[in-house]
Amino acid sequence: MPDARRYFDLPSPFPMRRGGALLGATLAYETWGALAPARDNAIFILTGLSPSAHAASNAEDPSPGWWEDMIGPGKPIDTNRWHVICANTLGSCRGSTGPASTNPHTGEAYRLDFPDLTLEDVANAGFELVRGLGIDKLACLLGNSMGGMSALGYLVQHPGSVRTHISISTAPQAQPFAIAIRSLQREAIRLDPNWRQGHYDDEHYPEAGMSIARKLGVITYRSAMEWVGRFARIRLEADERPEEPFAVEFQIESYLAGHARRFVRSFDPNSYLYLSRASDWFDVGEHAGGNVAAALAGIRVERALVIGVSTDILFPLPQQQQIADGLKAGGAEVDFVALDSPQGHDSFLVDIPRFGEPIARLLASL
Amino acid sequence: MPDARRYFDLPSPFPMRRGGALLGATLAYETWGALAPARDNAIFILTGLSPSAHAASNAEDPSPGWWEDMIGPGKPIDTNRWHVICANTLGSCRGSTGPASTNPHTGEAYRLDFPDLTLEDVANAGFELVRGLGIDKLACLLGNSMGGMSALGYLVQHPGSVRTHISISTAPQAQPFAIAIRSLQREAIRLDPNWRQGHYDDEHYPEAGMSIARKLGVITYRSAMEWVGRFARIRLEADERPEEPFAVEFQIESYLAGHARRFVRSFDPNSYLYLSRASDWFDVGEHAGGNVAAALAGIRVERALVIGVSTDILFPLPQQQQIADGLKAGGAEVDFVALDSPQGHDSFLVDIPRFGEPIARLLASL
Repeated sequence: MPDARRYFDLPSPFPMRRGGALLGATLAYETWGALAPARDNAIFILTGLSPSAHAASNAEDPSPGWWEDMIGPGKPIDTNRWHVICANTLGSCRGSTGPASTNPHTGEAYRLDFPDLTLEDVANAGFELVRGLGIDKLACLLGNSMGGMSALGYLVQHPGSVRTHISISTAPQAQPFAIAIRSLQREAIRLDPNWRQGHYDDEHYPEAGMSIARKLGVITYRSAMEWVGRFARIRLEADERPEEPFAVEFQIESYLAGHARRFVRSFDPNSYLYLSRASDWFDVGEHAGGNVAAALAGIRVERALVIGVSTDILFPLPQQQQIADGLKAGGAEVDFVALDSPQGHDSFLVDIPRFGEPIARLLASL
Repeated sequence: MPDARRYFDLPSPFPMRRGGALLGATLAYETWGALAPARDNAIFILTGLSPSAHAASNAEDPSPGWWEDMIGPGKPIDTNRWHVICANTLGSCRGSTGPASTNPHTGEAYRLDFPDLTLEDVANAGFELVRGLGIDKLACLLGNSMGGMSALGYLVQHPGSVRTHISISTAPQAQPFAIAIRSLQREAIRLDPNWRQGHYDDEHYPEAGMSIARKLGVITYRSAMEWVGRFARIRLEADERPEEPFAVEFQIESYLAGHARRFVRSFDPNSYLYLSRASDWFDVGEHAGGNVAAALAGIRVERALVIGVSTDILFPLPQQQQIADGLKAGGAEVDFVALDSPQGHDSFLVDIPRFGEPIARLLASL
């Protein structure tokens, strides 16, 4: 398997916001495009819950990345001009240190002994990586979904480290609907007898719980409107339906099953639990005495682009408006773009025409 | 326990739409207000998935019903004038025959031997009850949520049996987002090892699956907007949090847990599966060669009131608009009311001021 990942050693110990510290932790990352001699053309991308550092194909790994159509020569994030860095999130399981990594204190996997994880920790790990790569000031910090919250954590904790911010389909704090969804995803995993308080193995893997969690994720990542057009009430052929009571019958059900199948054993369930809870915990307001607007207004960037989608039920549009307003109050020149993409929260991954245009426009103006 | 239920014996055999027939089946029902000598003042209510026939308190059972503030003397559905009938849905478990009832062929509970259930069967059972009570023509047929789909099934199958129709927060056919949610609820139950292909008992009850199903229900029955105002990010007190990894921490999580706790052992899991699938199957268009608009336009009622809510994600507003347009095309005088209640799909249960007004107005005009 081609692999373009490099590994960055975090300072050890790496202190965690809610207590404890990681020893010998690493971040997996990939890059695209050349860093300019002045080191002033770096764009750092913080990701959603599940993506790897492989945002796009590159020489070492030509397989398509999760944002393949967004990043590359001549693409909206043009790697002829920009040096793009994407890291696998701290606490994830795609190369960076997380609950499935070996705990140096015990020689065994951390599992639930991994310390409490917050998105501020995710941000701090990213900050150390960027600094470790010799970059004092990012030309642009970009975060989407959970990564957008991590990006706000980056900005409030490291003033002066970023010139431009792109915030996509994210939120300044987790709201109760999103918390409810994520809490239920975690419950599905926790209630699976194979989870065994985090001590599953390949033979006893919480497949049912992870499947439910993933399907619920996909339901909330897309939109009802998209699915009316795409699936309507189309049924599977009789020979495609499993022989079991209450088997799937509609195409929408097998679409969800396909998503679950591709995800279930490729992601560490404990990692999922940690990152999901970190998202619930995130509230940028904690950095300004509980005041979200004040925390956002305390951020100093020169320019910002904030994008949201009207069909996003997980990170609804008013939350992006709030980010835009807050950054503006902090003195940034802000473009707020509300899109009508039909694909819901996931639009930024698939509606490249709509998202690419304002991103390219902002980057061209820098 | 006071109990106002009466029991109506359905014709035996009672044929089912997808094959098979029920022997000796019954419907539990309750009534409020007196039937006029001309038998022309009856309102029949078809319910959502889980409610019982006890829609409101009455002399035999003074406990509050699920629509207590809507039905009674001087209330929007005024029992000084109207004779109101509400039945527990066929296939449910609150007195009517369903999967938990005894199969006369075996002397054991039906469980998964209960025949395939459709909302057309639910409607036909209701029709037999109404006719059995000596009512040839309903003054009004009212259905909310799943009951609104059953009501459309009633109207297309029994032309000329209804003068006025009230359709609340429902749909002319199940769309993929709602199917996805319900499919996932069923999956949570089916994957619970205690479900045992329907053969659970009190000691082996699919508590985890039913809990997930109910919580997912509540999430989709309410709205993100309501919860921002109601729960925000308020946390439980430390002593209210269970001592377990990833325990609930926010009020929204304990709100969901409370709903699940009250539901789990009070509803038959197999019944839930049957009714949930019946909802997915419903498509009024099947009664007009696959054409929803034609099926609706084939319905003959004199007056109709169609109500929907902008925050309803399970039965979105355009689906109620479709019903209103269809009934209008069929020649009815139709009021379409789009409400901004913040409580989502469940608004009809709790936002009595907004819902009561148009209902009272329509009934007063008859």
